[in-house]
Amino acid sequence: MQSLRVDLGLRSHEVHVGAGLLDELGATVRRAGLGGIGAALITDTNVARHYATRAVESLKRANFAPTVIEIAPGEASKSLATLATVYDRMTAAEIDRAGVVIALGGGVVGDLAGFAAATYLRGIAVVQVPTTVVAQVDSALGGKTGVNHPRAKNLIGAFHQPRAIVADVATLATLPEREYREGFAEVIKYGAIMDAAMISDLERDLDRIAGRDAAILEAVVARSLMHKAAIVAADERETGIRKILNFGHTLGHALEASAGYGRYLHGEAVAIGMAAAAALSEQRAGLDGREAARLVRLIERAGLPTAMPPEAFRDADFISALRLDKKRADGGIEFVLLDHLGHALTRKLGVSEILSSFA
Amino acid sequence: MQSLRVDLGLRSHEVHVGAGLLDELGATVRRAGLGGIGAALITDTNVARHYATRAVESLKRANFAPTVIEIAPGEASKSLATLATVYDRMTAAEIDRAGVVIALGGGVVGDLAGFAAATYLRGIAVVQVPTTVVAQVDSALGGKTGVNHPRAKNLIGAFHQPRAIVADVATLATLPEREYREGFAEVIKYGAIMDAAMISDLERDLDRIAGRDAAILEAVVARSLMHKAAIVAADERETGIRKILNFGHTLGHALEASAGYGRYLHGEAVAIGMAAAAALSEQRAGLDGREAARLVRLIERAGLPTAMPPEAFRDADFISALRLDKKRADGGIEFVLLDHLGHALTRKLGVSEILSSFA
Repeated sequence: MQSLRVDLGLRSHEVHVGAGLLDELGATVRRAGLGGIGAALITDTNVARHYATRAVESLKRANFAPTVIEIAPGEASKSLATLATVYDRMTAAEIDRAGVVIALGGGVVGDLAGFAAATYLRGIAVVQVPTTVVAQVDSALGGKTGVNHPRAKNLIGAFHQPRAIVADVATLATLPEREYREGFAEVIKYGAIMDAAMISDLERDLDRIAGRDAAILEAVVARSLMHKAAIVAADERETGIRKILNFGHTLGHALEASAGYGRYLHGEAVAIGMAAAAALSEQRAGLDGREAARLVRLIERAGLPTAMPPEAFRDADFISALRLDKKRADGGIEFVLLDHLGHALTRKLGVSEILSSFA
Repeated sequence: MQSLRVDLGLRSHEVHVGAGLLDELGATVRRAGLGGIGAALITDTNVARHYATRAVESLKRANFAPTVIEIAPGEASKSLATLATVYDRMTAAEIDRAGVVIALGGGVVGDLAGFAAATYLRGIAVVQVPTTVVAQVDSALGGKTGVNHPRAKNLIGAFHQPRAIVADVATLATLPEREYREGFAEVIKYGAIMDAAMISDLERDLDRIAGRDAAILEAVVARSLMHKAAIVAADERETGIRKILNFGHTLGHALEASAGYGRYLHGEAVAIGMAAAAALSEQRAGLDGREAARLVRLIERAGLPTAMPPEAFRDADFISALRLDKKRADGGIEFVLLDHLGHALTRKLGVSEILSSFA
């Protein structure tokens, strides 16, 4: 097991990464300082089938009285409608201010459950227990929570830091192949924006990663989280450096929104967005063409798509989603580019500038 | 005009109280440091009829491009359903992170608009422009925002401090008599919990207050806000001293919830709750019976109800609402009592203890 601390002042918390941590969940939640009885274990029906019982048993051993709240799997559950049913269940269980939300699942569960915790009784504790690669290496850390609006992903949300993160890499064993692969878009992203040596290591280790080797997964997840923790500690509210974590995400989000949530997995859209951002980086930030090609090749080897559908750039929904991008303010988008593999910067670009680059 | 500062570190902000401030709204919002263009003016149809045009014109003079979002008046609008329509309108207007929400109205508008601001794009600025007594002396200050759940008032919410508060006491002139009166429950509360001299002054000034004299209103609203600002600055998240502001509210909220939102106005329920809390204070905190009677008499003279319906204490919904009280943790309710008129304390009481006191 590896543990690290996310340094956020009063909101500082521990992150634990390793195989089999699910069975220690209750004790870990207690060690995080949570002394109540009520626990809303929010999960989806797929994850519940594999892991809810173990999580519940562990929580009971630590004297919690858990209530399991299952949602349907998939991005469509990240909605105000599902949120309303979660509030209903939490009130029916009489979860009080001393209670805790346990978010057991992927990014959808983590974002929805985190937002429910952020807004229930004006905010109660949440412990993130991510069970997908995307959630373990990215979305569980950093406090971003929320649900989608039909017009824009994550439009409704709040910052709400977890009290602990428990990333059990053994839970990745049951992920369907496509969901497993998409997570490596975020892993590759950390290499692209801040750790060139990580790109080399990923090139070397890709086969062991594909085999879901627990030791390599612990190392890769912990290294990713170490990078994200450093960025989030430096800029919790994303007013500066944290923006570089959006590499590949501006176009990726617009693609997800315009294609209809669910056609692309988040990581697939980000993979496409990173490949497009690499091309834009050659034009706008002096990224060497061979480095751009090397990045695109790694994304492909990880089994992820890299081609932006050419018609996207003429699609009204795509353009509209880009215009509503959360990173937008005062008319420009803070677009993340690479000047070298392993180093990112941001440039304020107009929507039309971005579109014309791909015309 | 009187101005005061709420000292909340990075979230510190100004509060302005006076007659006619609405026409300076745009300039005041600019002085609060808001540099964007987009402005969502959220209000209800009653308030809009009297004041939306003046607010819009003032915002335009300060180079904002305001979008007016009208909701139906009344507590029923403090719902997830209304919130969803507000998000729709804000996204349609392409309000971005530099945008501001202007909450023009009473407590319902302030709470709903504040929560929309708290959760739109993970939080944008809000300026509170309260137009009722309750909102001016209480709910606009302190950052509490949220909507109701069918099972409990304000169950869904967040802390989100405004960037400024503009309390134009001239807007109180158009309040219906009942809505005007209810606000003085909160005013009397400040006297009861922390300012015995204010009780005497209110006893003296009640006739001028009833006549809606602008000078006396400016003084009363500013004095109330000064007290609330001091409490909120000392305990922003209500982990300690801020709890005394809930005097009269524990039973008041349960009464509102069980009677169906809307039967009692908030201030009326609080008035009843304060009278009941005064009786409980005699039993549990040594409050002198004459002081309790004096408080009840002042509440009555202000035109507010003081009698708890006797059947409430046997009502399953009332008891259930009490059990779900937000101040509850670990099985007890932090109940606010008076030991003297002008001084409050909290005692942890079980639900059954509270109920048996009134049996």
